[in-house]
Amino acid sequence: MITFSHAVAVDAGGTSTRAMVIDAQAQCLGIGRSGRGNPISDGADAAAASISEAVAAALIAANLPGTSVQAFSVAMAGGNTMTGHAQWLHEPLARLGISADVAVEPDLLAMFCSGTPELDGYALISGTGAIAALIRNGRIDRFSDGIGWLLGDTGSGFWIGREVVRAVALALDGREPKTSMVSAVLRHYGIELNNAVVNGHVVSLNDLVRLTYDRSPLSLAALAPIAFEDPDDPVSLSILVRAAHALATSVTAVHQPELRGPLVIGGGVLSHQPRLHRATLDELATQGIDCPVIDVSDGLIGAGMLVLRRGGLTVDDAAFQRLRRSTATQLSLSKRGYRG
Amino acid sequence: MITFSHAVAVDAGGTSTRAMVIDAQAQCLGIGRSGRGNPISDGADAAAASISEAVAAALIAANLPGTSVQAFSVAMAGGNTMTGHAQWLHEPLARLGISADVAVEPDLLAMFCSGTPELDGYALISGTGAIAALIRNGRIDRFSDGIGWLLGDTGSGFWIGREVVRAVALALDGREPKTSMVSAVLRHYGIELNNAVVNGHVVSLNDLVRLTYDRSPLSLAALAPIAFEDPDDPVSLSILVRAAHALATSVTAVHQPELRGPLVIGGGVLSHQPRLHRATLDELATQGIDCPVIDVSDGLIGAGMLVLRRGGLTVDDAAFQRLRRSTATQLSLSKRGYRG
Repeated sequence: MITFSHAVAVDAGGTSTRAMVIDAQAQCLGIGRSGRGNPISDGADAAAASISEAVAAALIAANLPGTSVQAFSVAMAGGNTMTGHAQWLHEPLARLGISADVAVEPDLLAMFCSGTPELDGYALISGTGAIAALIRNGRIDRFSDGIGWLLGDTGSGFWIGREVVRAVALALDGREPKTSMVSAVLRHYGIELNNAVVNGHVVSLNDLVRLTYDRSPLSLAALAPIAFEDPDDPVSLSILVRAAHALATSVTAVHQPELRGPLVIGGGVLSHQPRLHRATLDELATQGIDCPVIDVSDGLIGAGMLVLRRGGLTVDDAAFQRLRRSTATQLSLSKRGYRG
Repeated sequence: MITFSHAVAVDAGGTSTRAMVIDAQAQCLGIGRSGRGNPISDGADAAAASISEAVAAALIAANLPGTSVQAFSVAMAGGNTMTGHAQWLHEPLARLGISADVAVEPDLLAMFCSGTPELDGYALISGTGAIAALIRNGRIDRFSDGIGWLLGDTGSGFWIGREVVRAVALALDGREPKTSMVSAVLRHYGIELNNAVVNGHVVSLNDLVRLTYDRSPLSLAALAPIAFEDPDDPVSLSILVRAAHALATSVTAVHQPELRGPLVIGGGVLSHQPRLHRATLDELATQGIDCPVIDVSDGLIGAGMLVLRRGGLTVDDAAFQRLRRSTATQLSLSKRGYRG
């Protein structure tokens, strides 16, 4: 039984937040966007403000009042461990006239559903963190990795960035071969190359160490693109090979012989680094896994799929394609500045 | 010219602080001890309180007033980059009647001088951190590693502890072979083994991740001994081999063909893990380096050597042996509770 005529789906990420208004025919009626909106990393108040802003813009684009919204889902990192119904969102949404219950969904599941209407398959994300999952019956059955920067997330932007700066530190320290990444990393930090030894270390290394510890560990993720700049640098290549191996291994760890796929791939690192993407698929083939691969750029369409399913709609391929096409239309309208 | 009749030397560490009163004949007259005393990790006030406490105890043991102290050195981590004369120590020491200038020395140099009266050689420390150095003319000429937990300190207690908990996380996650370290790590954290899957990960892994991120990264160093418990566990063995390789490589990076040694070895991990100690020396031999090795347990005698040299004394082997013997005597007196 379909329990709504209009619903709102939100994809709340560490970089940006996207919201859509959707009807029971899987038509996207309006899109809204705002800044980062994860309650774990940004705090509940900042996340609620970002989500409200995106939702308000989507309602305006759809030319609908908040009172018309009968179902509401938000996909976010950590959504798999959150219990309850996101109390921190109730009051901000009530101010928009929305009184529907809020369902919190894992961002990884929304990514998967952005790529396919299938209920079973695999997802692999490498952004700031890295995680793979087996999806069964439309829910996450098993994760691999995703255990954070200190313990894992191997092959993630943080992990790659840390390997980059460690390789450069080792090269400056005379413990490893020279690498063309030295100049790129020093440029990133605004450090001039200075091989004079002061206090027992070369000056550039002292600067690199000081500036690294002045920042948060996760900010090392910003250095990840440097690993992909010079395809002829063997030290860079070693990072790429190890990242691809780790990402493929995470998929293999959750792989079930009887379930061929699809494998949905997303996250900023895998989306923007085609050499890593290709190396990861090659490594998967080496590990004996051959899945049809679908690339996604975010979890917005999947958040829409999840709110439709919660509302009682069986989302077949035709409905999935309708949602994709209408979302693309609304996205291009919103980019041109049209509002309904 | 010898510029003092009595001096105080302090070895201020991350675990404990030791002070000695010493005369111009290199005789240790009294020892005092207190808790951790590093101004960088503990704050200047806490470090000054620890150092004062150890110095006061040493003066009482030597039966001398603070006003008799004409030279004062303190060895500590970070001592190589500290400039000035430790202003934060002046007032607490003035309260003990000590008005001598305070010279700050690197703890690594004090470690080296605890092992040998030679002015040239190498030092290798693996405690919570890890660092190697070339010593020339009684000063540190060149470091290798020592760039902290996020970027390096490979083979340190932190590094080994992190490898232990990562290997256990991978084993619980099904991405790596089983290891006997699983039960030891879960016991360390007080976690019961539970292989049920909740929120996509086995329960024990969720617990391990949560408890790890609740603590400071450096507290992972407490897990390092687990890597040496089971000599038949291949995953443990791989950590030991990589640690030994990294530590030996740090020495090799500063090694000069014309300078044979000695190599002074210290730090909690190398002192208490004989298998790692042996593997590191084997790896050094493999890397073509053959130094006479001297093990030291702390930097107290070396701090004494450094204050004697600053006071104008040429510390020959006879003086070094006098300092060692008299320090051992005072240590055994202080352990028995005698006070002069």
